[in-house]
Amino acid sequence: MTKYITFMTDFGTRDDSVGCCHGIMLGRAPDALIIDITHEISPYDIRRGALTWRNVLPYMPVGAHVGVVDPGVGTARRPVALRVARGDILVGPDNGLLASGAEALGGIVAAVELANDQFMLSSRSNTFHGRDIFSPMAAALVNGHDLSALGPALDPATLVTLTLPEPRWAGDALHCAVSYVDRFGNLRLNTDEEPIVHWNVREGDLIAVDVAGQTLRVPYARSFGLVDAGQPALIVDSYRRLMLAINQGDAATAYGAAIDASVVLRRQ
Amino acid sequence: MTKYITFMTDFGTRDDSVGCCHGIMLGRAPDALIIDITHEISPYDIRRGALTWRNVLPYMPVGAHVGVVDPGVGTARRPVALRVARGDILVGPDNGLLASGAEALGGIVAAVELANDQFMLSSRSNTFHGRDIFSPMAAALVNGHDLSALGPALDPATLVTLTLPEPRWAGDALHCAVSYVDRFGNLRLNTDEEPIVHWNVREGDLIAVDVAGQTLRVPYARSFGLVDAGQPALIVDSYRRLMLAINQGDAATAYGAAIDASVVLRRQ
Amino acid sequence: MTKYITFMTDFGTRDDSVGCCHGIMLGRAPDALIIDITHEISPYDIRRGALTWRNVLPYMPVGAHVGVVDPGVGTARRPVALRVARGDILVGPDNGLLASGAEALGGIVAAVELANDQFMLSSRSNTFHGRDIFSPMAAALVNGHDLSALGPALDPATLVTLTLPEPRWAGDALHCAVSYVDRFGNLRLNTDEEPIVHWNVREGDLIAVDVAGQTLRVPYARSFGLVDAGQPALIVDSYRRLMLAINQGDAATAYGAAIDASVVLRRQ
Repeated sequence: MTKYITFMTDFGTRDDSVGCCHGIMLGRAPDALIIDITHEISPYDIRRGALTWRNVLPYMPVGAHVGVVDPGVGTARRPVALRVARGDILVGPDNGLLASGAEALGGIVAAVELANDQFMLSSRSNTFHGRDIFSPMAAALVNGHDLSALGPALDPATLVTLTLPEPRWAGDALHCAVSYVDRFGNLRLNTDEEPIVHWNVREGDLIAVDVAGQTLRVPYARSFGLVDAGQPALIVDSYRRLMLAINQGDAATAYGAAIDASVVLRRQ
Repeated sequence: MTKYITFMTDFGTRDDSVGCCHGIMLGRAPDALIIDITHEISPYDIRRGALTWRNVLPYMPVGAHVGVVDPGVGTARRPVALRVARGDILVGPDNGLLASGAEALGGIVAAVELANDQFMLSSRSNTFHGRDIFSPMAAALVNGHDLSALGPALDPATLVTLTLPEPRWAGDALHCAVSYVDRFGNLRLNTDEEPIVHWNVREGDLIAVDVAGQTLRVPYARSFGLVDAGQPALIVDSYRRLMLAINQGDAATAYGAAIDASVVLRRQ
Repeated sequence: MTKYITFMTDFGTRDDSVGCCHGIMLGRAPDALIIDITHEISPYDIRRGALTWRNVLPYMPVGAHVGVVDPGVGTARRPVALRVARGDILVGPDNGLLASGAEALGGIVAAVELANDQFMLSSRSNTFHGRDIFSPMAAALVNGHDLSALGPALDPATLVTLTLPEPRWAGDALHCAVSYVDRFGNLRLNTDEEPIVHWNVREGDLIAVDVAGQTLRVPYARSFGLVDAGQPALIVDSYRRLMLAINQGDAATAYGAAIDASVVLRRQ
């Protein structure tokens, strides 16, 4: 079994929650190699967690991937682990996050409910299963225990699934949305590069972009620095999705657009 | 000796201070397994550091625990290390933080002043003992040096202690305070679950909560998702203390309450 | 070869970029010991990255140092790696950051352009060379590949250089600037301790400080706690540079001063 544990949560790093989980993971599995994907998923935002995992998991080494965005902690929602086609195991709450993540790695091969209390903390809270269940379960995987040892098999068809918002064509306009505003203020859109291919767009060609009550005429560019500083560009991002950016600027602030804002693209 | 170093500070992660300490620790002790508890203790807030350690240290593996909230750096305050009953060693400034942390791990067994400059950086500043003294001392512990090698023994009775604020009963009302607002806006109170036991409260029973000029009637719940989204609940948190939360919401913002706010609880 | 990779970027930790790079580094080089210096360099601020590296690199173990503040990603700017006199290898974009960092470690001994696509991701984006080029190159170094294997040698004289702002004397006044506001609100100045030596200043001696439209009379102190809480002090920081601080306070907020603010020092 691999030694890798990747870890993604909405815990933030201001509280002690992430540190607490690291302590459980490394305390029980000193050989673990922990990779923190991010802990700044917006609070309770399962969809954002799913989109992040969809982008990032293919770049991670084969391992155990713990994802905790868990507004239903302590309720009837099940703690689960899934084996996916690539060989990884996803660990977390059954609320749509894991089923979405599994798609990025080839789909679900097997699933269990996390029930073996040998691999949980002996005293468990109702509000912090990241510490009490998911972290020690990941440590058990690193220590060589098989998925089947963690709990009874469950039917993958019973797992909660998410519907992620998709863009739609209306005539020759693509109606999409801001799915994320990144650290630089780039507006990440919920569309892949399909319109660029469809319209046969080349470097410097203009796209009309309706966003936050404005219509911008924005050139397509392969990267930020291929337009002048302060100028906008429509760019294929590093996950092959479109973003509206300003070279060395902050598009979200400049255009007053935030997550879920509607964006319409038209070929000029 | 263990390979674990846990690390808690008020340095934040925007500056290079935490990275600098990691470099010293790992550079001198490549086998160290570092666990960052948090570095977002409020600046200079020794009490917050002590409360965090009290919660978290019992979940950490036995090891060296470095805690640096150190407004007195470069003054006469002593750099110290303590061995506690569980076998861990606490490293940091003698300002109350370490003595408080030691209580969480069974109390102090031995103490030294950090004076052996073989285990310090050769050039030392007056403002960054985290880098110059505490980190290399922790590395020395990981490398197998004994506590007694770090400096001369000192009398634990001479260590600075903290008084942490405690709730008090006034008739059948419990007067407590917000000891922390977590990343989700949950109001963590400075009381354990005693009133819940005392009042024989069951799921859904109402508690009157005076907070920030309002009197709320809040059900006790075992977890967030057992009340409707947007509704408040009084919950025993994962450290067996009470918190006032809003399911999928932010109680601190909703009620206008911050750290140290007075909270009075009464059985309805 | 060393196992150390230090990592400094302007990526922040809210996005998944840092986690993605960790995954590539550790996935390809499981023996790597990663030290995150900081990822909160201000977006696009190459100068801040250079100043941070100048301070921190001498405290880091000999290793590979990856620095990514890269507004020119995807343009003609070259990805490069430099061997420095101390034995380290610096990895990142050729935009001034690396040449500045090299000065802190004894100067450049050899340089290559990162061109061997055996040590890049097979599919590369135009916007995230941290993940696609710099991280796998660092992993290759940890895995024992020599600098010369990463790409063809280049003439160090062709590397982009930065000019960092320096203070200047005007009569007996030193005109300097705030080069950084740290997490505590301390105003870090772009001067070393030269004026303290020049003026033969001793503990408690007063310095006149012009900052943000005010003239303050501030004592020189060896550390924060040697003035009363809430009082200002001029202190030699842990990198032997001057800072204007308030003991247990926030000087930046108190004086309304931010990065690049002009500061004039005079002996009282």
